[in-house]
Amino acid sequence: MAKINLNFTKVAQGYFSTEIAKRAKPFLDSHPGVELYKLGIGNTTEPIVPSVVAGLRAGVDKLSKRDTYTGYGDEQGDTRLRQAIAEWYGKRGIVIEPSDVFVSDGAKSDCANITSIFSDDAVVAISDPGYPVHREASVISGKRVVSMACPEKNNFLPVIPKEKADLIYICSPNNPTGTVATKEQLESYVVYARKHKAIIIFDAAYSEYVRDPKLPRSIYETEGAKSCAIEIQSLSKAAGFTGVRLGWTIVPKELQTEDGDTGTLNQFWNRRQTTMFNGASNIAQEGGLAVLSALGQKQTHGQVDYYMENARIIREGLKSAGFTLYGGENAPYIWLRCPQGLSSWECFDELLTKARVITTPGVVFGENGEGYMRVSAFGHREDIEKAVNSIRENFGNQ
Amino acid sequence: MAKINLNFTKVAQGYFSTEIAKRAKPFLDSHPGVELYKLGIGNTTEPIVPSVVAGLRAGVDKLSKRDTYTGYGDEQGDTRLRQAIAEWYGKRGIVIEPSDVFVSDGAKSDCANITSIFSDDAVVAISDPGYPVHREASVISGKRVVSMACPEKNNFLPVIPKEKADLIYICSPNNPTGTVATKEQLESYVVYARKHKAIIIFDAAYSEYVRDPKLPRSIYETEGAKSCAIEIQSLSKAAGFTGVRLGWTIVPKELQTEDGDTGTLNQFWNRRQTTMFNGASNIAQEGGLAVLSALGQKQTHGQVDYYMENARIIREGLKSAGFTLYGGENAPYIWLRCPQGLSSWECFDELLTKARVITTPGVVFGENGEGYMRVSAFGHREDIEKAVNSIRENFGNQ
Repeated sequence: MAKINLNFTKVAQGYFSTEIAKRAKPFLDSHPGVELYKLGIGNTTEPIVPSVVAGLRAGVDKLSKRDTYTGYGDEQGDTRLRQAIAEWYGKRGIVIEPSDVFVSDGAKSDCANITSIFSDDAVVAISDPGYPVHREASVISGKRVVSMACPEKNNFLPVIPKEKADLIYICSPNNPTGTVATKEQLESYVVYARKHKAIIIFDAAYSEYVRDPKLPRSIYETEGAKSCAIEIQSLSKAAGFTGVRLGWTIVPKELQTEDGDTGTLNQFWNRRQTTMFNGASNIAQEGGLAVLSALGQKQTHGQVDYYMENARIIREGLKSAGFTLYGGENAPYIWLRCPQGLSSWECFDELLTKARVITTPGVVFGENGEGYMRVSAFGHREDIEKAVNSIRENFGNQ
Repeated sequence: MAKINLNFTKVAQGYFSTEIAKRAKPFLDSHPGVELYKLGIGNTTEPIVPSVVAGLRAGVDKLSKRDTYTGYGDEQGDTRLRQAIAEWYGKRGIVIEPSDVFVSDGAKSDCANITSIFSDDAVVAISDPGYPVHREASVISGKRVVSMACPEKNNFLPVIPKEKADLIYICSPNNPTGTVATKEQLESYVVYARKHKAIIIFDAAYSEYVRDPKLPRSIYETEGAKSCAIEIQSLSKAAGFTGVRLGWTIVPKELQTEDGDTGTLNQFWNRRQTTMFNGASNIAQEGGLAVLSALGQKQTHGQVDYYMENARIIREGLKSAGFTLYGGENAPYIWLRCPQGLSSWECFDELLTKARVITTPGVVFGENGEGYMRVSAFGHREDIEKAVNSIRENFGNQ
């Protein structure tokens, strides 16, 4: 077996959603036709807003006519979209060069592929609990991974490692804990990165769920971040693009490598994307332009409001039933402490078999997630209400 | 510079299209407004056929309504599409399991990313000349690359290496030489792979351009190929999806690793795709289903006919002007021998400055491409005719 990448044997065989499906199967098999309430995977459920549907339709129409048909675009993304993304940051007081914007087919690909521009002997610090892709992509590429615990006293966000790491994955608003790093916390990460000449990979996929104006939505709100941070964004949760596939990554030319060199990482990522990717779908990119328009922003923010109202219903419903929970105020995830000292998987089984609710065991996000559950606020309102009521009726009074 | 992937410094800074643009710039700057005829990049130019536009529109419409909206799909592709792809092979007498089909955002990504399931000490044999992604993705991932020359006596297709290689990239119909491997040639590759326990990465992106019924369109037409070959397909050239982005890769569970183990490579690729990719755009996948429908096949084949008529016009026009050329009968590329002993870049400059035609120097595909040019048949008919006439008038009578 010498010529296959044995690092694949160091990660579980399936992605966690596969594992959850497997764990739920015996109950489903013995209860055919049972109605399940799904608060597990963070999958969007509401239709794409009208202005963005119009953009996607326009994208298809262009391809149907000789004069407007386009084939290969720039691998880095349509110039108009890169410009619109830079302007979107500009409205938030952040200066981003369009040439530092790389449009992609979503945050998952970029979170994983970004590891390829770093050496295989780089040490990667990942949040525990954290989004599995951060850890697994690093392991598969042969890098050494160190865990950053996310304890309650740190607002369930990562505590910077004592040793030097070369890459640090930070996700805020955090998946899975639904908590958001404060400005001071982001500053502490930037200070650490600059001191250790590390690069922060900032996963901002949930930034549009931040309501509190005091909380940062971009790592670039922190001074000095452009010299040490890559930011990954996604329209999956911001615009219901989980299936459409569109995101972007900012790789500033100011980023410094170990020896103080600048420009290299931007150039390497440009080479990676032009060689190993052929651009996001031009239809999706037309949709992305519509999302970033004034009307698109208004309508998609309205959709985010809808999911955040779901989050409020979950939080208040479960809190009044005696559960202890965190997050969900500036993020679509609620971090629930398992009652009665249950383990994550025990709690999963109880919620499934007693309340017929699917949730995600915190432990699938890392060993420090043990004893917690991630509850997702994505769903139709009536399903969310039914799920909360079912938990209250069948699993409440803790 | 220890913590960045220095393999990036082993490839040229830009992808070859960047290099061509750079070389053409001085002429363009000194001839503002000059009309250029583009026979360079293999980029589709004709609008997407009506039945497929209808499929793409239906994909958008689904996302606009609550009852039909879908978010994340299976990373491996929509079950209906995987089934349709298996049936597409079935109609050609090839049995493919839907679970061996992995839908992707195109052949370029898969050609590059497939290297990740193999060990970094695997030796990769690539065609010279060949599609640059095969070589560059291997180099970037740290693998050792050996060249397989593609001499005229071998129909400009790769001669299998004398030493043992672990991976062999074969592209047929070939990019850039426009020639097609015979059944006997494919058999020789399979025999080599089975003998050396190597894996063939068969890039079949141009299979729909094969007209001669005696020539194979899939590696799986060769007996024993499922134990040693991965096939990568694309709708870019077959359906004008260069911008839409859709393709697929077949990773048979029968594939054998070094120790005779089966199933592992299918499982590793499944893990790679579920962890580092989130599926092709659901809109593009609806389009893909339309391409594979009976009407979609009829209409897209008609579009391929259009490009192949372009290829005939180029071949006959340039041949009658005294040029020596190959390929272009079952592929959209013509492999032109540079006249008067010119080097590829000299010929590029002559064609540009004298005939105002952009072509691709053969040498960008590898040192054995020196002295040749790749002429692309993608373009509007009148532009192709103008280009051929301009070459005949300004650069003919060789």
